[in-house]
Amino acid sequence: VVGVGDELRPTPYLCVDLPVVEANVAAMAAHARELGVALRPHAKTHKSLELARLQLEAGAVGLTVATIGEAEAFAAAGFRDLFVGYPLYVDAPLARRIRALLDHTRLRLAVDSAEGCRVLADALGPDAGAVEVMIEVDSGQHRTGVEPAHAGAVAQAAVEAGLDLAGVFTFPGHGYTPGGRALVAREETDALARAVDAVARAGFVCQVVSGGSTPTAEHTAPGVVSELRPGVYVFGDAQQWELGTVGPDRIALACVTSVVSVTGDRVALDAGSKSVGADRAPWASGFGRLLEHPDALVTLLSEHRAVVVWDHSPLPRLGDRLRLVPNHVCSAVNLADELVVSERGVETGSWRVVARGANT
Amino acid sequence: VVGVGDELRPTPYLCVDLPVVEANVAAMAAHARELGVALRPHAKTHKSLELARLQLEAGAVGLTVATIGEAEAFAAAGFRDLFVGYPLYVDAPLARRIRALLDHTRLRLAVDSAEGCRVLADALGPDAGAVEVMIEVDSGQHRTGVEPAHAGAVAQAAVEAGLDLAGVFTFPGHGYTPGGRALVAREETDALARAVDAVARAGFVCQVVSGGSTPTAEHTAPGVVSELRPGVYVFGDAQQWELGTVGPDRIALACVTSVVSVTGDRVALDAGSKSVGADRAPWASGFGRLLEHPDALVTLLSEHRAVVVWDHSPLPRLGDRLRLVPNHVCSAVNLADELVVSERGVETGSWRVVARGANT
Repeated sequence: VVGVGDELRPTPYLCVDLPVVEANVAAMAAHARELGVALRPHAKTHKSLELARLQLEAGAVGLTVATIGEAEAFAAAGFRDLFVGYPLYVDAPLARRIRALLDHTRLRLAVDSAEGCRVLADALGPDAGAVEVMIEVDSGQHRTGVEPAHAGAVAQAAVEAGLDLAGVFTFPGHGYTPGGRALVAREETDALARAVDAVARAGFVCQVVSGGSTPTAEHTAPGVVSELRPGVYVFGDAQQWELGTVGPDRIALACVTSVVSVTGDRVALDAGSKSVGADRAPWASGFGRLLEHPDALVTLLSEHRAVVVWDHSPLPRLGDRLRLVPNHVCSAVNLADELVVSERGVETGSWRVVARGANT
Repeated sequence: VVGVGDELRPTPYLCVDLPVVEANVAAMAAHARELGVALRPHAKTHKSLELARLQLEAGAVGLTVATIGEAEAFAAAGFRDLFVGYPLYVDAPLARRIRALLDHTRLRLAVDSAEGCRVLADALGPDAGAVEVMIEVDSGQHRTGVEPAHAGAVAQAAVEAGLDLAGVFTFPGHGYTPGGRALVAREETDALARAVDAVARAGFVCQVVSGGSTPTAEHTAPGVVSELRPGVYVFGDAQQWELGTVGPDRIALACVTSVVSVTGDRVALDAGSKSVGADRAPWASGFGRLLEHPDALVTLLSEHRAVVVWDHSPLPRLGDRLRLVPNHVCSAVNLADELVVSERGVETGSWRVVARGANT
């Protein structure tokens, strides 16, 4: 049973285990220090000021964010060093928002083509030189990013357009596969090294070489990368648990949910895709995983109900509370207005999800 | 290109095509009238007062909602006949919220076990007789619901507990499969008919026999069902398009998204799972579908990017705007604070998603 007091908080809700978060933040900070690289964690995972502060206090150099809207939410709270880690299409309204951020914030933006550099510089006009740009390199995920060998041409275009070239980055998103983490970490480093070479042959220097994701971070080889950008590590999730990145003792966020129906060994919970997200990788055991019942299978997830095929322990009763770990914690957090914070089983407060829905 | 004026609205955002919504609302209302059944549409799809009003103006008898929180959002705006279509676990705080609703609202709740009837009646105390209860029957989805043959025992328990038995209902969620809609509609009707018989043998009468989902509604046979509860039909989505329930001309909601990267025939858009939801049925062609490019495949969806393998038409350019139809519109709507409303290509206003995140 989770919660305190005579009356429990209505379920479902997302609850953070603060000591575990603090341990996760400290562990990744230590890992970055040992590697001799900067840590710029991805704030899209938590979207919360309190967690970003913990990360900076532990030594992070700044934040990675996903959108200008997220940058605005963190800049408004005083965060001054932000990297928007996705190539954007910047039109006049977005250029105005970027200019407003530049008054107080060091801002890095992403580009992945020569055309993208020209569009960005045109939109920013005389402020083009005030933003640092990072060239995104495709290390194998095939989402966005230029082929490493073509990074030199993009660097050339960036400088010719008047942008301030800072370096190269990649997101090794194809490392979210069982058994693939170490291999993908090598592909990541290789792609970044080739991009740095290509930029050098074009006559430019990469000050920043940025990589890293939660599943690949522990396999990052020293020497090439100067910065890591993991996000999920602060909370962990069922995907990372099943990938072997973290054990259940490192999972710091779960959806507290009540049993609403029991039929045979089938248990229905009041958490659904509107609470934890519908993410499910082909290799996942189910739609999330129960923290205290890892062998129970979450076989069906509709908007407001999760169906669990129970393990061999005694069946729960109506109203029993369970902790469902989302498959993908970033999706779950973005569905909530606040995260309840608990310490050793006692709920002690909440954090606002300040950048919830900040998609533009 | 979507939008009006010198400056376009920032992407991504959800946009509703009002004339198509109105046609969809009218068509389902006409279908229910032809069948001779009441229409109680599921408001979890749209979570918006404006759309609920359109549905009631077209003849709906009331609304179905997913949670007490949704009931509160609609009751606060004057909706007076609400069915919460999921068995709940009602503790003291939830019982207080239910009592507050009963002051002004006719409220139906769901039960699917004898134990559930007793828990509900205990929690409501002297108000137990003021809520109508509907017995959920499992017609094959295996989420919640009692076996039809056991509905009589649940009816007996409901009446003994002092609840006001209204009837039986089912959600034929297993009808969301290609080629399965007509068969599942028959299973739905059969299950309800068997449940009505079981309740009759226990000595009780079902005033309401409620079924229906968007994919099965058109196959509902007359005679057994007295009420339909479809939700998705107001907007349609890529799932319904691929199931054959609707053609693209009936799709009334899309995410307006900008091209941010083009590599070969791979086009990256600024819409992702945080805008349209990560739902993907095993049979879906991808993570949503482009309204004007149905043969393009949305092969990858991360939180802020969709990757599209383009069709044979000319490649789009950076900044081009496209309409991405979500796989599951209910998930997409719940991610947004508002729905932009357009009429014949002109954006004329917006609807608040008043029940966004109302999961408890």
